[in-house]
Amino acid sequence: MTTYKVTLEYDGTNYAGWQYQPQQPTIQAEVEKALTQITQTRTSVIAAGRTDAGVHAYGQVASFQSEKPLSSQEWVRGLNGLLPADIAVQQVEEVTDTFHARYSAKGKIYEYRIAQTPHRSALERYRLWHISKPLDLKAMQEAGALLVGTHDFSSFQNSPTDTKNPVCIVESFTLKQEDMLIRIQIQANRFLKQMVRSIVGTIMEVGLGKRHPSDIKQILEAVDRCAAGKTAPPHGLYLIKVLYD
Amino acid sequence: MTTYKVTLEYDGTNYAGWQYQPQQPTIQAEVEKALTQITQTRTSVIAAGRTDAGVHAYGQVASFQSEKPLSSQEWVRGLNGLLPADIAVQQVEEVTDTFHARYSAKGKIYEYRIAQTPHRSALERYRLWHISKPLDLKAMQEAGALLVGTHDFSSFQNSPTDTKNPVCIVESFTLKQEDMLIRIQIQANRFLKQMVRSIVGTIMEVGLGKRHPSDIKQILEAVDRCAAGKTAPPHGLYLIKVLYD
Repeated sequence: MTTYKVTLEYDGTNYAGWQYQPQQPTIQAEVEKALTQITQTRTSVIAAGRTDAGVHAYGQVASFQSEKPLSSQEWVRGLNGLLPADIAVQQVEEVTDTFHARYSAKGKIYEYRIAQTPHRSALERYRLWHISKPLDLKAMQEAGALLVGTHDFSSFQNSPTDTKNPVCIVESFTLKQEDMLIRIQIQANRFLKQMVRSIVGTIMEVGLGKRHPSDIKQILEAVDRCAAGKTAPPHGLYLIKVLYD
Repeated sequence: MTTYKVTLEYDGTNYAGWQYQPQQPTIQAEVEKALTQITQTRTSVIAAGRTDAGVHAYGQVASFQSEKPLSSQEWVRGLNGLLPADIAVQQVEEVTDTFHARYSAKGKIYEYRIAQTPHRSALERYRLWHISKPLDLKAMQEAGALLVGTHDFSSFQNSPTDTKNPVCIVESFTLKQEDMLIRIQIQANRFLKQMVRSIVGTIMEVGLGKRHPSDIKQILEAVDRCAAGKTAPPHGLYLIKVLYD
């Protein structure tokens, strides 16, 4: 048995998320179907992060094991030939048997894209969150900076959740503007369920002047999901990269 | 009767192009349906350029006439409320009665997007032309520069066509690379049928080393579509801007 690390890009629009669910289209199900077709053996994959319905990925990482003696290039070509057009394999690497896409991950980078334009976008309708009102980006940046560090992120975690540890280390929060596009990147050692979307929804309320940047401190201290803002829509969110040693 | 100029963004993926065709989804049909619903009178639109099936627009311009006394903002809001999500109005302006979206246009800017990456893209699959082989961008730039000026573009015109004058003035050809993305922008006073796609298909053959940049001169002189290369796929093409006085 050889263990493989596979890096995936996908458009989450037409899926009920990464994780397998009966009767629903999921990315995991598509990847497992393609792997099983190649290996002729039921082959399962484990992802670094279970992205929600509508969430995209440029660099999701998953691991699988197989006895099929294929080269990295053969895996990539074989999988890309079988996977639907909205899922693409970028890389397949042979890794040590101890590699586990989820437990070996040291961190992840997510990006949330917002378009601040007077009218909705046709071309980017499934790719970003459209906001027509003006935003105070400086206040948003200031609010985001308060999230950096080691905190209990219970206030930004949507239940139900399967993790008992709500403490995450946010390594960085950056907000960049290019023309109408605003990109928020957050790097953390781990993320709780819908954490980025809860953060972005709250930061957006700061940008719209409904909350003060310093409110973030009280929200974190509240350890209560109700203290934070609304959950931002899934289609603006991208899993950019999973970090390993 | 007041004449209006409307600027449109659309995702051409699910349409048989701009121009009305019975039994086929077209952008013109959707815009006329929305206008007719607002005005309660059959209202037709004329576009600056009839984009093909699968071709996108950031700045298509169309004109229509109406007696309905609405402000620009009311037209924009009304139309965006009725149009499908893949068509969006950016602006509606009152113009003089002599304005005609097509005949008043002094030029247009088209952009063609290419991704030169080893593997296909999932997120951009309907947004650019994917090329896995390496490209000689310098040769492509050199070939494109030979198109600038006043030429008979018959070799880059796909029949059937409704224009008898094959002479166009190409004002500029620019090729820019940002990471894996290559953007070719062409500005001309007018474009023949599938001219940009024929040019890009030919320039691509130069980039792949199948033709020499200087071949462009002979291709233009041949005044024969067979002298040029293949037509590039529609989904990499964007109508960026229509120029008026």
